[in-house]
Amino acid sequence: MIASKSLIAGSWEDGAGSSFTSYDPANEEKLGVHQGVEKSQVDRAVEGAASAYVIYKMFDFDQRAAFIEDVADEIEALGDELLETCHRETGLGIPRLTGERGRTCGQLRAFAALVREGSWQQARIDTAIPDRTPIPKSDIRRVLRPLGPIAVFSASNFPLAFSTLGGDTAAALAAGNPVVVKGHPSHPATSALCASAIEKAIEKNNLPQGLFSLLQGAEPSVSSELVKHPKIKAVGFTGSTHVGRILYDLGASRPEPIPVYAEMGSTNPLFILPKAIQNRLNKIARGLAGSITLGTGQFCTKPGLVFVLKSGDSDAFKEVLTQAIGDIQTGNLLNSGIKSGLTKKLDAYDHKKELTTIAGGAVNGGTLFSVSGSDFLENPELEEEVFGPVAILVECENIDEMLRAASRLGGHLTGTIHSDNDPESEALKTILEEKAGRIIYNGFPTGVEVCPSMHHGGPYPATTFAASTSVGTAAIERFCSVVCYQDAPDDHLPEALKNENPRGIMRLLNGQYTAEKVEA
Amino acid sequence: MIASKSLIAGSWEDGAGSSFTSYDPANEEKLGVHQGVEKSQVDRAVEGAASAYVIYKMFDFDQRAAFIEDVADEIEALGDELLETCHRETGLGIPRLTGERGRTCGQLRAFAALVREGSWQQARIDTAIPDRTPIPKSDIRRVLRPLGPIAVFSASNFPLAFSTLGGDTAAALAAGNPVVVKGHPSHPATSALCASAIEKAIEKNNLPQGLFSLLQGAEPSVSSELVKHPKIKAVGFTGSTHVGRILYDLGASRPEPIPVYAEMGSTNPLFILPKAIQNRLNKIARGLAGSITLGTGQFCTKPGLVFVLKSGDSDAFKEVLTQAIGDIQTGNLLNSGIKSGLTKKLDAYDHKKELTTIAGGAVNGGTLFSVSGSDFLENPELEEEVFGPVAILVECENIDEMLRAASRLGGHLTGTIHSDNDPESEALKTILEEKAGRIIYNGFPTGVEVCPSMHHGGPYPATTFAASTSVGTAAIERFCSVVCYQDAPDDHLPEALKNENPRGIMRLLNGQYTAEKVEA
Repeated sequence: MIASKSLIAGSWEDGAGSSFTSYDPANEEKLGVHQGVEKSQVDRAVEGAASAYVIYKMFDFDQRAAFIEDVADEIEALGDELLETCHRETGLGIPRLTGERGRTCGQLRAFAALVREGSWQQARIDTAIPDRTPIPKSDIRRVLRPLGPIAVFSASNFPLAFSTLGGDTAAALAAGNPVVVKGHPSHPATSALCASAIEKAIEKNNLPQGLFSLLQGAEPSVSSELVKHPKIKAVGFTGSTHVGRILYDLGASRPEPIPVYAEMGSTNPLFILPKAIQNRLNKIARGLAGSITLGTGQFCTKPGLVFVLKSGDSDAFKEVLTQAIGDIQTGNLLNSGIKSGLTKKLDAYDHKKELTTIAGGAVNGGTLFSVSGSDFLENPELEEEVFGPVAILVECENIDEMLRAASRLGGHLTGTIHSDNDPESEALKTILEEKAGRIIYNGFPTGVEVCPSMHHGGPYPATTFAASTSVGTAAIERFCSVVCYQDAPDDHLPEALKNENPRGIMRLLNGQYTAEKVEA
Repeated sequence: MIASKSLIAGSWEDGAGSSFTSYDPANEEKLGVHQGVEKSQVDRAVEGAASAYVIYKMFDFDQRAAFIEDVADEIEALGDELLETCHRETGLGIPRLTGERGRTCGQLRAFAALVREGSWQQARIDTAIPDRTPIPKSDIRRVLRPLGPIAVFSASNFPLAFSTLGGDTAAALAAGNPVVVKGHPSHPATSALCASAIEKAIEKNNLPQGLFSLLQGAEPSVSSELVKHPKIKAVGFTGSTHVGRILYDLGASRPEPIPVYAEMGSTNPLFILPKAIQNRLNKIARGLAGSITLGTGQFCTKPGLVFVLKSGDSDAFKEVLTQAIGDIQTGNLLNSGIKSGLTKKLDAYDHKKELTTIAGGAVNGGTLFSVSGSDFLENPELEEEVFGPVAILVECENIDEMLRAASRLGGHLTGTIHSDNDPESEALKTILEEKAGRIIYNGFPTGVEVCPSMHHGGPYPATTFAASTSVGTAAIERFCSVVCYQDAPDDHLPEALKNENPRGIMRLLNGQYTAEKVEA
């Protein structure tokens, strides 16, 4: 019933803009025609968010945490309907979607726990020194605080965990901000169901309905109006480099510029050093084949570039990897846009004289190309992300060539080193620290742990802000501002800065970390 | 001898670009004609910084701290020559410049201490859970790290503390980055002397000469080439909104966008509530007159907008304030650009029918205008910063009008509340939290403490990134990136993430703050 509707500050509405169609990726049958929103609906959603902000930012932290936990509970309460709807729209399969729902609810609960604990506010206190000469020192206290309405753009490849109620929404809500989601047009019914879950949690917690809106649509103008709205204070986006950059530029060129945190994909270079390949080529090849084809290669952390040093071992590795990729049954691609992009790229690579197709080559299975290290160095476009179960094996003549190739790379979300105490690993790591947000040893980049230490980011063009993460609890910082108070009376200070420290949070007090209260 | 030279990766050079002239602001006599750099010199400075980065980022933290302390020592070793040169170029006077030198060296030493202590790296560790089901949990560790070459643009109003070796340079060096400074054309000899101080510290510490460069010049093209250089990774700027926005836009529109942290000034609204004015109008008026005229009104935190509720008390306050401003002898303006800007603004305000000139009105002294609250609300341009010893007294009819005026404000560095338990202060504070980076109670915004809790920032147009500070030790974060390591061997981890925790820093270990080691 709500499958084609938008939720605008509490009201379920048909969009008044252009229509778009959703398909079943398994058979390309039409699932539904939906109405996208128009500008006046974008405006109402953002105005609703701005009104809700005034209430929500003052909401007690325990209540804020309970609300976010209720969102997770309401997602689970949707039961099989959510999984089946989502499978119909994405073809990702019930087991994978069950896992992704667990992750989505898990990260909401992790943010709720973070809010309740409270130390994420990075409270700092420097107490007064009234008798300091030549001038007295004031009491100064600094804390993170919410920003205002946040726009979140859903990704197609994680219809739950990076979509309507995914990581960015969870982080923004945890920081005390309302959210306006631009739903992905590949899974509108899934988005609407998730919106109905947060709608229930909002009602249960007596929060203002404007706290969350879902805008459906496929028109670029909807996205642009959302980013340009003067009351939007930051944007989270996961998707292509092309769209991410457009949105970033829109945010930066506003009269009041705002940060657009765009995670735009990555080719995730993986390096296998000689001793590692010698000792465990079968294990690495099989693991790698699984990582390349996981989710039909539609993970932003898919390893798309594999570097080896050419040798008898690397030839044997190539053989096992080729076989393993050929053996794996891949699933569907998420939508026709991804399919046509992949078809075009495979066709171009097929005609590229420097590349050899050594496994697959068709759009409905895993594909592996090979290229020499010198040809890789001369064809920088081979570093571009190919969305789908495709990788390029780069066979380097020697370690210098491998290190030169590593140095030539742009920014990626991850870089992986397989090393059995190989002496070259130290130099490689030093290069990769400048290129990737996460460096993985003897593993595979797919599978992003949601935890305080995770950094899912990386230098441009992987993301627009290398120091910001879109996965893990540190993501709360992207949706925070900062304020400091000078000589404020205790009853004017936010909880985190009060002398009593009622929540017992960790604070930097006169340069020392402590969870103690301040002696007044 | 070096007064008109640039320091380019260790070589003192005449610029090969356009010339510019420096003047003594006391008598407008010519001090010298200097050669600005051209593009090839910008390029060599940045290339030198990029080469130095590879060495400096690996430099042991104790050595990095000792180097930064040497920079402070070398500034002090310049003795009276620095103060006299600086006074000649700025007219700020030896006592003020002695204080500013103290602050400059103090903040360098504060950053050195921060580096040595080490907790600024925000280390986070989540240890592995190999037997977790359904999949094992990896060991993940996250840390702040340097970014690469940083461009710093000097301000004219703090020729030491916000200039060549000022806060941004100190923060960038502390984070492990090389710095290329674009010197302010108002004080080239001061900049060159400061550059000679860091040159000596670089030599003493056997660091690469490219670690620091000073580019002299007044041509916008030099600034633009510096920001656009692909090896520059972030920019710090203090100056006008006009130039700050140009540089921000240049940074955002690069093929690889970079953050331009621009601090662009602010009008620093100050609100005096009824009981406060009743109880201490003389004290507030005299303190405020001092704050408005301090440094001839050329502080970015000068209170330029003063809001009162019209009453007999406010009339008496106005009288004392008018008298106090008239009594204060102001100094020189820093340069002819500031002088002509102020002249133009005073002339425009003089002809504005809504404004009444109640004190001064000439460019060579303090000036106070008054305006009614309703006229202020109808003339949004009155919120613009006027650089110089000028303020506007806004006389509101009632508290609603005052709160409406507060709500209409844009972003500022500070907002001040004078309150003696006035009940309106809570509502005012809630509004100002959205408008200013620092909220001051019963004081004045000039005088920015350098400490961990200071936030010298604010919503646009005060700055381009509201969550970032340009004063205090938290400024180190603007020049940091982030990386995380997954299952890395201990000897590949940076010091902050090693099991042993050799520096004993505070870390977030499995969700708990601790300075303990990790049991391997």
